[in-house]
Amino acid sequence: MPAPQKHVIGLVFYPGMTSLDMVGPHQVFGALPGVELHRIWKTLAPITCDDGLVIVPDTTFSTCPPLDVICVGGGLEQRAVVDDPEVLDFFHKQGKTARFITSVCSGAEFLAKAGLLEGYRAATHWGMREQLMTNQGVEIVNERVVVDRNRITGGGVTAGIDFGLTVASILCGEETAKMIQLLLEYDPAPPFDAGSPEKAGPELVEKAIALMQQMSSLEFANPVR
Amino acid sequence: MPAPQKHVIGLVFYPGMTSLDMVGPHQVFGALPGVELHRIWKTLAPITCDDGLVIVPDTTFSTCPPLDVICVGGGLEQRAVVDDPEVLDFFHKQGKTARFITSVCSGAEFLAKAGLLEGYRAATHWGMREQLMTNQGVEIVNERVVVDRNRITGGGVTAGIDFGLTVASILCGEETAKMIQLLLEYDPAPPFDAGSPEKAGPELVEKAIALMQQMSSLEFANPVR
Repeated sequence: MPAPQKHVIGLVFYPGMTSLDMVGPHQVFGALPGVELHRIWKTLAPITCDDGLVIVPDTTFSTCPPLDVICVGGGLEQRAVVDDPEVLDFFHKQGKTARFITSVCSGAEFLAKAGLLEGYRAATHWGMREQLMTNQGVEIVNERVVVDRNRITGGGVTAGIDFGLTVASILCGEETAKMIQLLLEYDPAPPFDAGSPEKAGPELVEKAIALMQQMSSLEFANPVR
Repeated sequence: MPAPQKHVIGLVFYPGMTSLDMVGPHQVFGALPGVELHRIWKTLAPITCDDGLVIVPDTTFSTCPPLDVICVGGGLEQRAVVDDPEVLDFFHKQGKTARFITSVCSGAEFLAKAGLLEGYRAATHWGMREQLMTNQGVEIVNERVVVDRNRITGGGVTAGIDFGLTVASILCGEETAKMIQLLLEYDPAPPFDAGSPEKAGPELVEKAIALMQQMSSLEFANPVR
């Protein structure tokens, strides 16, 4: 058999990111044949995620090779970094050559601010749809994973797993993606049916927004009010 | 409103663990009111997971307080630590007082080896069911999340999210668990239907076992052959 095609995939980490946004796709990408994974931030210092988990990056903006896939997730503290010129420059630069420009959850805001979603359809966390829609010419839609040409975006947090499997199938074919789904036993059976604003209902949505607002300087909006 | 009840939850990390096994429940637990989370290992040195992610623990076996909930996940390199007396002693000791003794994926092997699943029903990764069933008096069942008295166990990798929400509902009530499900937008829509051996079919299962066997010293068995 020929060696599998090499795929250089970079996930941009940052302080206050939501760990599961990135660990879902990371676990999927880590099982791809021929993959070279980079966990990227300005420095190699440990990063504290918004749930307290501490993760260590291994690649900096300046040492990062050209990426085939660039990916970024959301985080309750993304406001502190999403306008940082050094961060946006990295997305600009990599965005010029990357085969796929991708995000999970409110990570779509990084792509939008870097001008990389102008004229594209994209997914984001339900609480951020309204805010993102009013900006940067992106058409935010209520879908779990959106593939629009070479932009691939996932909805909130756990959508990163569906997103990751979608990217896996595009890069390495459906059989490989299915095998990874099996390895990760991704046959979900949520104990409740409250995973979207439509299913959770207005009362729970308002409570969730109040809680997120307490923990974050982001502005959330109720998409079903 | 009275202050919420405090819950001290500890996740045992180790080199070669599967990151998503623990990050799924960690993200759920991190959103619980009144929670004190510990990421535990022998030392505070950074840990490399089996997908290459590097995570830093914050609590050692000797500094860990008595846990209300002890939790451990699986990992392709768990063979190297699952018989370590220092590790098993920690489970023994915490198991005597913990309100809930829990695992995700092949992490059930730690509980079984520590004698904590004797006479209990439990879930594990599909590839480890046979191996675990022949040991330590545990009844391994083909379910995604199993609650048997105070033992709560999840199936493979992504089952950790369903497991985490189940634990959340037991600790803090159904409304809190539903709100966290909504925050994490856990309304799964896998792009394929290959997340269990039954759904993936025998050919894909054999390929998945061959791949896991290459990457790990664990022994996997096909539950649907």
